[in-house]
Amino acid sequence: MRNIRLTIAYDGTEYHGFQRQPEFHGPTIQGTLEKTWQKLVEEEVSLTTAGRTDTGVHAAGQVVNFHTKARIPIDKIPKAFNSMLPRDIRVLEAQEVEPEFNARFKARWKRYDYLIDNSPIVDVFSRLYTAHEPLPLNYSKMQEAAGYLEGRHNFKAFCAVGGSSKTFERNLYICRVTKEAHKIRITCIGDGFLYNMVRIIAGTLIYVGKERIQPEEIPKIITSQDRTLGGPTAPPQGLTMTYVHYGEDSPLDIYPEFRD
Amino acid sequence: MRNIRLTIAYDGTEYHGFQRQPEFHGPTIQGTLEKTWQKLVEEEVSLTTAGRTDTGVHAAGQVVNFHTKARIPIDKIPKAFNSMLPRDIRVLEAQEVEPEFNARFKARWKRYDYLIDNSPIVDVFSRLYTAHEPLPLNYSKMQEAAGYLEGRHNFKAFCAVGGSSKTFERNLYICRVTKEAHKIRITCIGDGFLYNMVRIIAGTLIYVGKERIQPEEIPKIITSQDRTLGGPTAPPQGLTMTYVHYGEDSPLDIYPEFRD
Repeated sequence: MRNIRLTIAYDGTEYHGFQRQPEFHGPTIQGTLEKTWQKLVEEEVSLTTAGRTDTGVHAAGQVVNFHTKARIPIDKIPKAFNSMLPRDIRVLEAQEVEPEFNARFKARWKRYDYLIDNSPIVDVFSRLYTAHEPLPLNYSKMQEAAGYLEGRHNFKAFCAVGGSSKTFERNLYICRVTKEAHKIRITCIGDGFLYNMVRIIAGTLIYVGKERIQPEEIPKIITSQDRTLGGPTAPPQGLTMTYVHYGEDSPLDIYPEFRD
Repeated sequence: MRNIRLTIAYDGTEYHGFQRQPEFHGPTIQGTLEKTWQKLVEEEVSLTTAGRTDTGVHAAGQVVNFHTKARIPIDKIPKAFNSMLPRDIRVLEAQEVEPEFNARFKARWKRYDYLIDNSPIVDVFSRLYTAHEPLPLNYSKMQEAAGYLEGRHNFKAFCAVGGSSKTFERNLYICRVTKEAHKIRITCIGDGFLYNMVRIIAGTLIYVGKERIQPEEIPKIITSQDRTLGGPTAPPQGLTMTYVHYGEDSPLDIYPEFRD
């Protein structure tokens, strides 16, 4: 059996999340990819993913792998997929990898970006990829609060009910707030993420921007392990899974712009 | 009667163009705006627009006006519209203008932008707002060709059949090709545009990029007044009506970045 690793991008707007579901729930990313492969080579496969994204969440660099008997040359795989997939899912790259490679368990760290449109009237061209916050946000307080979140912590206060994690300690290497005209970007890079963790971080930082939570309260919220103390879970369309890393390099090797 | 001028933005993906149509054609921008006004103040109005955009074409700064008896304060109008409109149409600004103002006839010049995604695999996040050209385009030849299009010309060779114009001479003040990572932008600023003119210019410049037409052929194509000599009409989703100007300022006053 060959082990194939795919890097994929998708606009999650029309999908009922990543994970395969019974048909009546609506299409999923996994279901669409698996069905496409079946049409291409008449083989049922089961994808393993670096991270299951929720309904409406996007990916610019999701990674999946699957085992196959098909002999289709590796360099033909992206084109074969893309000729059959809907235009909101694209296979960016295919690689043949060692049998042990597992997109989920071999991932060293992941990057997510949460984008906020902070203009008074929503920008129609980015509305599907941002959360709209019309009132001015206190940007420097958001930056200060993000600093408290960086590092190794028990993130139980930032984990939604319904996740499958048994441990809550994660290392959030990078949590940064940057600005691009009317857009505010929250970048989270960590060794693992709890259920809805980035959206709860985003919702909490938006509350900090609205001055409903002060930056200095963040350490207390972390220590409390109490989900009710932070902000609400920010809406899915602002979230994009940007990148998954499998090698030795640290996040700062790959993203030197985050060196202080 | 008050004369109200609106600046609007829309994502044209889901619309059957700007112009009101019988219902069975599907929704239009004009129909949606007029119906929204009727719901707001129970008054039938007829919008005049700076430029009717085709099915699938977008606008970042379209201008319309209409005459009304309604007494709603001018500064409440954008919010009133936006609370009722679908999220892919936004009223950015409302102004009360002199009775003679006419969004179509008083327009001095307009800016359109045509955006091409020239990456091998379409960018899922901009696919609704770009035309995808996977093969590398000869960018400097496109720039050279655009230079020949600037100025006052008879643009009949760049006018689709079915337009209502009786004269074909227009002044294309600016026709520039710029690059932003994998995106190529064609900016056209002129005193008036013929039916499908920007999309035919874009299609012709794409053919120049593919080296199917040489830049030096552009003057001959213009002189020929023959629509069959240029490139095809580029697809609608790459086109955005960016701005309409009503004052004395020249395009270079407003966009100094296009000074040579």
